[in-house]
Amino acid sequence: MTSLAEPLQPPSRVLLGPGPSNVHPRVLRAMSTPLVGHLDPAFLRIMDATRRLLQFVFQTRNELTIPISATGSAGMEACLVNLLEPGDEAVVCVNGVFGTRMADIVERCGATLVRAEAPWGRVIDPADVAAALRQCRRPKLVAIVHAETSTGVWQPLEELAPLVHAAGALLVVDAVTSLGGCPVHVDEWGIDACYSGTQKCLSCPPGLAPITFSPRAAEVLRTRRSKVVSWYLDLTMIQKYWGAERVYHHTAPISMNYALYEALRLIEEEGLELRWARHEQNHRALKAGLAAIGLGIAAQEQHQLWMLNSVTIPAGVEDARVRTALLEEFGIEIGGGLGPLKGQTWRIGLMGESSQAANVLLVLSALERVLPRSGYAVEAGAAVAAAQRVYAG
Amino acid sequence: MTSLAEPLQPPSRVLLGPGPSNVHPRVLRAMSTPLVGHLDPAFLRIMDATRRLLQFVFQTRNELTIPISATGSAGMEACLVNLLEPGDEAVVCVNGVFGTRMADIVERCGATLVRAEAPWGRVIDPADVAAALRQCRRPKLVAIVHAETSTGVWQPLEELAPLVHAAGALLVVDAVTSLGGCPVHVDEWGIDACYSGTQKCLSCPPGLAPITFSPRAAEVLRTRRSKVVSWYLDLTMIQKYWGAERVYHHTAPISMNYALYEALRLIEEEGLELRWARHEQNHRALKAGLAAIGLGIAAQEQHQLWMLNSVTIPAGVEDARVRTALLEEFGIEIGGGLGPLKGQTWRIGLMGESSQAANVLLVLSALERVLPRSGYAVEAGAAVAAAQRVYAG
Repeated sequence: MTSLAEPLQPPSRVLLGPGPSNVHPRVLRAMSTPLVGHLDPAFLRIMDATRRLLQFVFQTRNELTIPISATGSAGMEACLVNLLEPGDEAVVCVNGVFGTRMADIVERCGATLVRAEAPWGRVIDPADVAAALRQCRRPKLVAIVHAETSTGVWQPLEELAPLVHAAGALLVVDAVTSLGGCPVHVDEWGIDACYSGTQKCLSCPPGLAPITFSPRAAEVLRTRRSKVVSWYLDLTMIQKYWGAERVYHHTAPISMNYALYEALRLIEEEGLELRWARHEQNHRALKAGLAAIGLGIAAQEQHQLWMLNSVTIPAGVEDARVRTALLEEFGIEIGGGLGPLKGQTWRIGLMGESSQAANVLLVLSALERVLPRSGYAVEAGAAVAAAQRVYAG
Repeated sequence: MTSLAEPLQPPSRVLLGPGPSNVHPRVLRAMSTPLVGHLDPAFLRIMDATRRLLQFVFQTRNELTIPISATGSAGMEACLVNLLEPGDEAVVCVNGVFGTRMADIVERCGATLVRAEAPWGRVIDPADVAAALRQCRRPKLVAIVHAETSTGVWQPLEELAPLVHAAGALLVVDAVTSLGGCPVHVDEWGIDACYSGTQKCLSCPPGLAPITFSPRAAEVLRTRRSKVVSWYLDLTMIQKYWGAERVYHHTAPISMNYALYEALRLIEEEGLELRWARHEQNHRALKAGLAAIGLGIAAQEQHQLWMLNSVTIPAGVEDARVRTALLEEFGIEIGGGLGPLKGQTWRIGLMGESSQAANVLLVLSALERVLPRSGYAVEAGAAVAAAQRVYAG
């Protein structure tokens, strides 16, 4: 009968790339829950609880805390298009793909872009942010990536808010890869707008972008002079659906919201501190294992992410050949490098459900098997043994 | 342990509102399939097959035929922001909520809006489109809604393309509610850009927006002078992920794509003509049943949608009381009126999986039970009997 497509039967994968990460069976089951309408009283209760759970994960009391009905990049766009108007000045910190993307969006909004830059793989220096702010007449916001998925760099944020607020600007943070995997303290750190994606350390399928706006950012939104350029991402309308008014805007993606709800419940059950500690330990074990076979982390020392390990590919080793072998022989997905790092690095993600000792030992074992074929000598068992020592404490 | 949210256990509903519609168990099961990465060879094959299935459903050979990674309204925005540039002139046909929404988006794009209007509940007259085109110096596009979900009006499209093309403009069609439930012939009707949503007659959960661009529309996209205002919806980049290049843009919502794939396979198995006939028959049965108890369809005669029945609420009957009783006692969701029709109409959807004789008989039985409580006398069994006569042929 059917001729255009075969039955849906994708292979089994261990997802150790830059996302999506593995999804807990409870979340998969939530996805298959029969639907209710987007204005059903039962769904409205789910929305209210989702807001509470997101406030917990973001560590915030912000009222405007909701999932945008699209993937993480739409969360980025939502924050920028709602806060910026044509002619505004925005400082964007650029040291990887996602800072570059923010800069692109700022320009599409008709705002004036001022960059604070660092080489890919290194953190942004707050002094450079201060210098960029001084170039502005009246800066509207500073946007920065917490966990640069393209480079594996972990940007410290604690010092930034005083600097940004003193200049009268808002602090916008990309927490797509960090949220749920390492500390993100929206209120304590003075973050005004923060967005994430569901498919990284929240371990929910991709499709929603949690965001949160501080009262200060919400006030900037409320007092805009022009309409938000995107109708779909216009928070002045979306907040009326998530708020008491329940005004229809677009049909919420019910099943994705079910999945996020269950994923967030799992995080609450585990506890944020224990979850962060799990991500840290698995990162340390992976790093020790990689070091034992001579593989280094490409990101700046002291600023290496727990959930995304950017690994320098040794000279002479073919990027694609190794990744293909991992995928085809072991069912393991790892990521290649992006942009200028293509062919230079692998990106091994240990995010959410994927951050497990079993996965660390598996990927190290697999690398021990695969690397020698590219002429890269490895002492069998060395990587796994080094990781085991970390777990043994 | 968990304190912020109770377990996920929404009630069972029969979804007879304006969408989402009921989802087939095979589609629900597809949603819970473990994930692969968005660049996994297995996922790339699913993408290619999805394109073929969408071409079949849209009845088109357009190469640029893909699901946008957000809900139907984002499909609307994607078509308009990719085709319009600041200063362009656009004719928008407005006779309900969704035409109004298109007009809003056109203005946010910085384009000049010219309206062709009809009263809510009536179709747009092609002569009014011609008149609107004559007001333009150089019209870029004409946008029109095929199935106005807010009013239940079915807009004929066959005459429009020659008119629109003669003026040098593109024909943009909203098929959110029509696709999969009644004929939509993109190529034959000369449609240049068409978008839909997954949660109506495709009977997939909400979360994706299938779109298709004709070669002519693709050429307009290719020769833009300015960047698309939305990064997330920028088809110049998205088409490189769906095309041979496989360039990363955003992380595709894997599970939603699984669901769409399975929903489209079900449509191919049923066959488009049989599926349309099913929608027609269930509409006729519902209409006959409603007429037997004195309830009329609010949309213009001869232009009433099969999948969305806008029912005039009889004088004295309280809108909310009836809908609440249907939901709480029978688990049936129907929709209320939107905008000026709030409190004036109900919207009974018979879309995709929800378009079943069993559901028609159920909602008629339930109305027979509920309406008398508002003082509206109903002859018991009259509505159901009238519907049964339609099914008996």
